[in-house]
Amino acid sequence: MPTAKPMSAEVELEVPFHDVDALQIAWHGHYYKYFEAARTKLLRKLDYDVEQMAASGYSWPIIETHCKYVQPLRYGQAIRVWATVREYENRLKIRYRVEDAATREKHATGETVQVAVDLQTNEMCFVSPQALRERLGGG
Amino acid sequence: MPTAKPMSAEVELEVPFHDVDALQIAWHGHYYKYFEAARTKLLRKLDYDVEQMAASGYSWPIIETHCKYVQPLRYGQAIRVWATVREYENRLKIRYRVEDAATREKHATGETVQVAVDLQTNEMCFVSPQALRERLGGG
Amino acid sequence: MPTAKPMSAEVELEVPFHDVDALQIAWHGHYYKYFEAARTKLLRKLDYDVEQMAASGYSWPIIETHCKYVQPLRYGQAIRVWATVREYENRLKIRYRVEDAATREKHATGETVQVAVDLQTNEMCFVSPQALRERLGGG
Amino acid sequence: MPTAKPMSAEVELEVPFHDVDALQIAWHGHYYKYFEAARTKLLRKLDYDVEQMAASGYSWPIIETHCKYVQPLRYGQAIRVWATVREYENRLKIRYRVEDAATREKHATGETVQVAVDLQTNEMCFVSPQALRERLGGG
Repeated sequence: MPTAKPMSAEVELEVPFHDVDALQIAWHGHYYKYFEAARTKLLRKLDYDVEQMAASGYSWPIIETHCKYVQPLRYGQAIRVWATVREYENRLKIRYRVEDAATREKHATGETVQVAVDLQTNEMCFVSPQALRERLGGG
Repeated sequence: MPTAKPMSAEVELEVPFHDVDALQIAWHGHYYKYFEAARTKLLRKLDYDVEQMAASGYSWPIIETHCKYVQPLRYGQAIRVWATVREYENRLKIRYRVEDAATREKHATGETVQVAVDLQTNEMCFVSPQALRERLGGG
Repeated sequence: MPTAKPMSAEVELEVPFHDVDALQIAWHGHYYKYFEAARTKLLRKLDYDVEQMAASGYSWPIIETHCKYVQPLRYGQAIRVWATVREYENRLKIRYRVEDAATREKHATGETVQVAVDLQTNEMCFVSPQALRERLGGG
Repeated sequence: MPTAKPMSAEVELEVPFHDVDALQIAWHGHYYKYFEAARTKLLRKLDYDVEQMAASGYSWPIIETHCKYVQPLRYGQAIRVWATVREYENRLKIRYRVEDAATREKHATGETVQVAVDLQTNEMCFVSPQALRERLGGG
């Protein structure tokens, strides 16, 4: 069985004023928006964004999120967010890294976990459907 | 023809930390969430929230928003938000007032305008459907 | 006296999944984030972003916002947002236009108004300070 | 040495329309706002909210967040969010539980971790300052 292709994507963002809190740093909950931007790019690279998920008969709700904040982000800071597939056989686990776009210093790492839910039965799948597995080279 | 019943509703909220920006005041765009909280209460009083709208055959997208910021809101401030129907015959115009819950001092006023869109034809209605008019006493 | 230089800036954005509501359209309050992205670019072009404002002795709170929603925005839609200075002598009024990045069709227009507040006295200014006027060519 | 007082707080909230995404469920990143509402209540019970933190000479940035989504939340759902102190000696770890306000069914669990940062030296503290320890009975 072939191993999965290493699969990742990156986006560049700038921390907007409306994400910065009274302590002059990006509020912790907003990082999940930055992760989503990178995840969206990754899923499009796999041709498996929301629309293709639905067409394949599944939705992929997020069942777990996690973030470690290493260094605060400031208003106007240019950041690069990486998303990388870490698991896909039974669930889709994506790992994130937020770094300063210029210095490449690490500012945060994180993870999201999604599972397939069959749109007809509304049941959670314990094995990822073929639609995802074939896109990641695991067949 | 009977005149419309004056119709309003109010909610009490507290400005959360995540709504406060680097200038230590509630970021201007968040006021539309406060308006929505009051509008939701008002529409439920009319038994015409999202679900009843859909059941009546219409959605009511917002086509205009407006807010005047009189005095800034601070973290933890207890506020009262009033929503009052101002027009409903051709479109639903709701007016808002944000005041300090304790002093009743005015902090902001605003307005939203919604129109009915027929869910079958996807056409905008130039007269508000009966489903809304009857709820507001205009028949 | 020379007339003000026409001054505008534009940004390209994509409507993210987390901005789309249960009716499958971008929620109305999020447009003010799109406006802010364009306003930030415009103010940087004038070398008068948050930091320079503070250095000049003023903050510029937003005292009024307005938006007309012409056509809904959908998930993943690429948009262009224009910000243009409309007044600056006594207050800073900026006008916005949101258009589809590909078709250039208009989706929304809007406005924000800001006034200078003296950071020492905490008083609102009825005439815009020189720091802004000189940047806009009005002297 | 006395053991810490068990310390928790709860808030009741309703899932607002603007938190619900295109899949008709509360978007995953918004749960951290619900956690914050409960954490704020807990910290106030300890008389150690943002203002008291600053007065004690520390800020307490969040260095880790985590959430498990057990069952989706729907628009208008009334929820209760519990926040409970789990560690405080070296860092402040708070655990959360989101349940349906009526049925008490579990919808999510989560965690946030904060550390004290000395406002004078800007250094992270490896032992929680007395200001927090005394409030939690650990002396």
